Amino acid sequence: MSKLFTQSTIINVGLSSFADAVVQTGGQAEQVEWSPPAAGNRDVGLALARMIKNPTVEAATEQSYQRYLQAQPVLVGIGTAGKEIPGMGSRLLLHAGPPIEWPDMCGPVQGAIVGAVLYERWASSPEEARKLAASGSITFAPCHHHAAVGPMAGVISPSMPVWIVENSEGGNRAYSNMNEGLGKVLRFGANNKEVIDRLDWLAAVLGPTLQKTLRKLGPLEMKPLIAQALHMGDECHNRNAAASSLLFRRLVPAALQTDAPTEQLRSTLNFIAGNDHFFLNLSMATCKAMLDAAHGVKGSSLVTVMARNGVRFGIRISGTGDTWFQADALPVDGLYFPSYGPEDAAKDLGDSAITETAGIGGFAMAAAPAIVQFVGGTPADAVSNTMAMTNITVGRNNAFTLPALNFSGTPAGIDARKVLDTNIMPIINTGIAHKEAGVGQIGAGITRAPLDCFSAGIQALDASLR
Amino acid sequence: MSKLFTQSTIINVGLSSFADAVVQTGGQAEQVEWSPPAAGNRDVGLALARMIKNPTVEAATEQSYQRYLQAQPVLVGIGTAGKEIPGMGSRLLLHAGPPIEWPDMCGPVQGAIVGAVLYERWASSPEEARKLAASGSITFAPCHHHAAVGPMAGVISPSMPVWIVENSEGGNRAYSNMNEGLGKVLRFGANNKEVIDRLDWLAAVLGPTLQKTLRKLGPLEMKPLIAQALHMGDECHNRNAAASSLLFRRLVPAALQTDAPTEQLRSTLNFIAGNDHFFLNLSMATCKAMLDAAHGVKGSSLVTVMARNGVRFGIRISGTGDTWFQADALPVDGLYFPSYGPEDAAKDLGDSAITETAGIGGFAMAAAPAIVQFVGGTPADAVSNTMAMTNITVGRNNAFTLPALNFSGTPAGIDARKVLDTNIMPIINTGIAHKEAGVGQIGAGITRAPLDCFSAGIQALDASLR
Repeated sequence: MSKLFTQSTIINVGLSSFADAVVQTGGQAEQVEWSPPAAGNRDVGLALARMIKNPTVEAATEQSYQRYLQAQPVLVGIGTAGKEIPGMGSRLLLHAGPPIEWPDMCGPVQGAIVGAVLYERWASSPEEARKLAASGSITFAPCHHHAAVGPMAGVISPSMPVWIVENSEGGNRAYSNMNEGLGKVLRFGANNKEVIDRLDWLAAVLGPTLQKTLRKLGPLEMKPLIAQALHMGDECHNRNAAASSLLFRRLVPAALQTDAPTEQLRSTLNFIAGNDHFFLNLSMATCKAMLDAAHGVKGSSLVTVMARNGVRFGIRISGTGDTWFQADALPVDGLYFPSYGPEDAAKDLGDSAITETAGIGGFAMAAAPAIVQFVGGTPADAVSNTMAMTNITVGRNNAFTLPALNFSGTPAGIDARKVLDTNIMPIINTGIAHKEAGVGQIGAGITRAPLDCFSAGIQALDASLR
Repeated sequence: MSKLFTQSTIINVGLSSFADAVVQTGGQAEQVEWSPPAAGNRDVGLALARMIKNPTVEAATEQSYQRYLQAQPVLVGIGTAGKEIPGMGSRLLLHAGPPIEWPDMCGPVQGAIVGAVLYERWASSPEEARKLAASGSITFAPCHHHAAVGPMAGVISPSMPVWIVENSEGGNRAYSNMNEGLGKVLRFGANNKEVIDRLDWLAAVLGPTLQKTLRKLGPLEMKPLIAQALHMGDECHNRNAAASSLLFRRLVPAALQTDAPTEQLRSTLNFIAGNDHFFLNLSMATCKAMLDAAHGVKGSSLVTVMARNGVRFGIRISGTGDTWFQADALPVDGLYFPSYGPEDAAKDLGDSAITETAGIGGFAMAAAPAIVQFVGGTPADAVSNTMAMTNITVGRNNAFTLPALNFSGTPAGIDARKVLDTNIMPIINTGIAHKEAGVGQIGAGITRAPLDCFSAGIQALDASLR
């Protein structure tokens, strides 16, 4: 103990190799984690310096954050994508993430595009579908360009049934497709007969039955339902067991009041009862509705979109309009199903990071300690991950409280300035797709939003204000 | 800091007033919490000393604990109490807790007895029912004397439908009645027309519909379902939102396959969908089935029953047969609904402490941080409560893991010796009934099993071995 008073201790800030040298020569050193803001990039750092504590940006960011907080997303119905989604032309296919053209798409997205072409009967074989996709006669666009979101490949085609979530405060609507369950499914790029048959059934049976059910049920407020699920171990991205169960309990009594044929009722309710992830797409549409309300406030550094197409990761910022800021998508660090490993994995994929953008998913991991059995780590890590996100968010959303953190609100509203100032990359819980089309999910884990997206975004925001 | 080395510090074990005196005169004292085993009672202490580390008791306790661990409770059906419950005579009414006769019963239990008499049509008015109950022509017995359990008043009458849970390892069966929901209900002593009508409907519609449903579903293993609910924020005593939802998801597809009339199906599924506590009675029957398997091992100090009748708290111990060891029931420390307070409360009531006896409920509070909004305290208290129970239990039940404690098993198998050796009273999460019949639930909170029950039990176990 006396040594402490007779020998100096070095406090080293930044690169740990300096401290290592001291320790190796018999000295004592304490390491303080620190790295220069904006990953040390001088231009970005200067833009950031201009923006931090800039009252215009502060006020705009707060205004957009308040719009997110005040949004009241309500499930108002189910409809057909081609009729409901604004600007959804007849030969348009939506996909996850930022814009990408056919030759550049990853395996699972190409597989899902082929499946959607078959499902729409625009072609009668996978080969023909590929040829058509490559021909230029089909238009591809991000879901996010049409107020929509889709998990993994995120392909939405005109004939698919879609959830319709309306923000009753702002009037904006958001859309997502139906969750197909696990196994061979379109969102992982599968496109065989089993997949197309299920898509047909979703459109012919599940969609209309749920539409009748929702008419009986009336508008369903989504925030209280998500809040309840967060008290039941879900984070509503990779874990939706509670939310799916709660939704099922709301749907069944209404479904039994409809005139839906018994066999259709039976198969619809069976399908939902058997799918722990059924709520995911609705969770995503809810988050999209809240964040679209916050988009388009001049000067705001609030992140309103994070999305991946399996090749590139893209974000959008409230104050920079419809521009995407992109970087290469990162691999996912996670747990693999037996017989698969990192070499089999596609890169980070899907619009589901909209949940993290809205303060749930990885940001609410503290609510879902059991999720670590799926994505890896320990329950203590789950709490740390949520706590770390408080450094890069505008505030806490008290509509979504976390029991393990003494009912404090989830950290919400990613501020691109804070991301760069701290170099803390937003955390994302996600599924892992096989890199080849149609193999399906091979694991789940945790990934991060690349810093370069935020650097580009902050420079653009800076330019927009000068 | 140097003071630490120049001045002595007193370490005081036990009564803190000795340490206070040291501190008041300017000294330093550290207080160590300790109290003499068996609350300082010499006779009980001697019996305890003979029993602690006694190899016969050790082996017997371990044997009974293993039977509890190995029990495989399975929901096998629903039947009528009078037909299914062994020894259920035609003029017998079962009640919660240890034996008690009409004049001594608390308000809610008397109210529930009156309701059951009306429901059975043994009388046509509450006055007539009271007279009959007081006349001696009805027999009263604890549910526990008939392998049954009931929440709060716990009154089970011959015509009521009951859950049948079978331990497929040992063959023993356990029973519980149907949960009526909240508000004016028999278990809180209400007995007006609304209550009797609902009991009639449970017997005429819900019971038979669920019976048909369970025949389609087949035997349902209860341990995996409870385990899943513990990962979804339930402790399966005072919080059953997840377990009720998971059960509902299992029941609906099977119910839709039955030939039950549409209106009956609709009302039955509506009723279950609207009741977050529907699973409670099934949770209790499951725990009873596991603990009955562990009962009756000569020399075992394992506690197999904790139950309260609103006046007295009673326990049974595996090695001491059917004897009850009793003490006055304690008040409940909790949160009251608006306009009610402790002066309105009945004393601790109900068989539901069978859940704590089986290692869930209060013992698994770490699984259910959100429950503190209902029973009081903080999420950290919930974890501490579970941790404290590890001092008085035989082991951890790895069938029931707790995410917040890094997936360690719930502390399970109360050892009466450890309770007395540590003076740690078993914790119980519970509802609070109004002391007058029929007012209903007025709050929820935490209570403890009185130490005197364990003192009497250990002395009897000691006597049985000499």
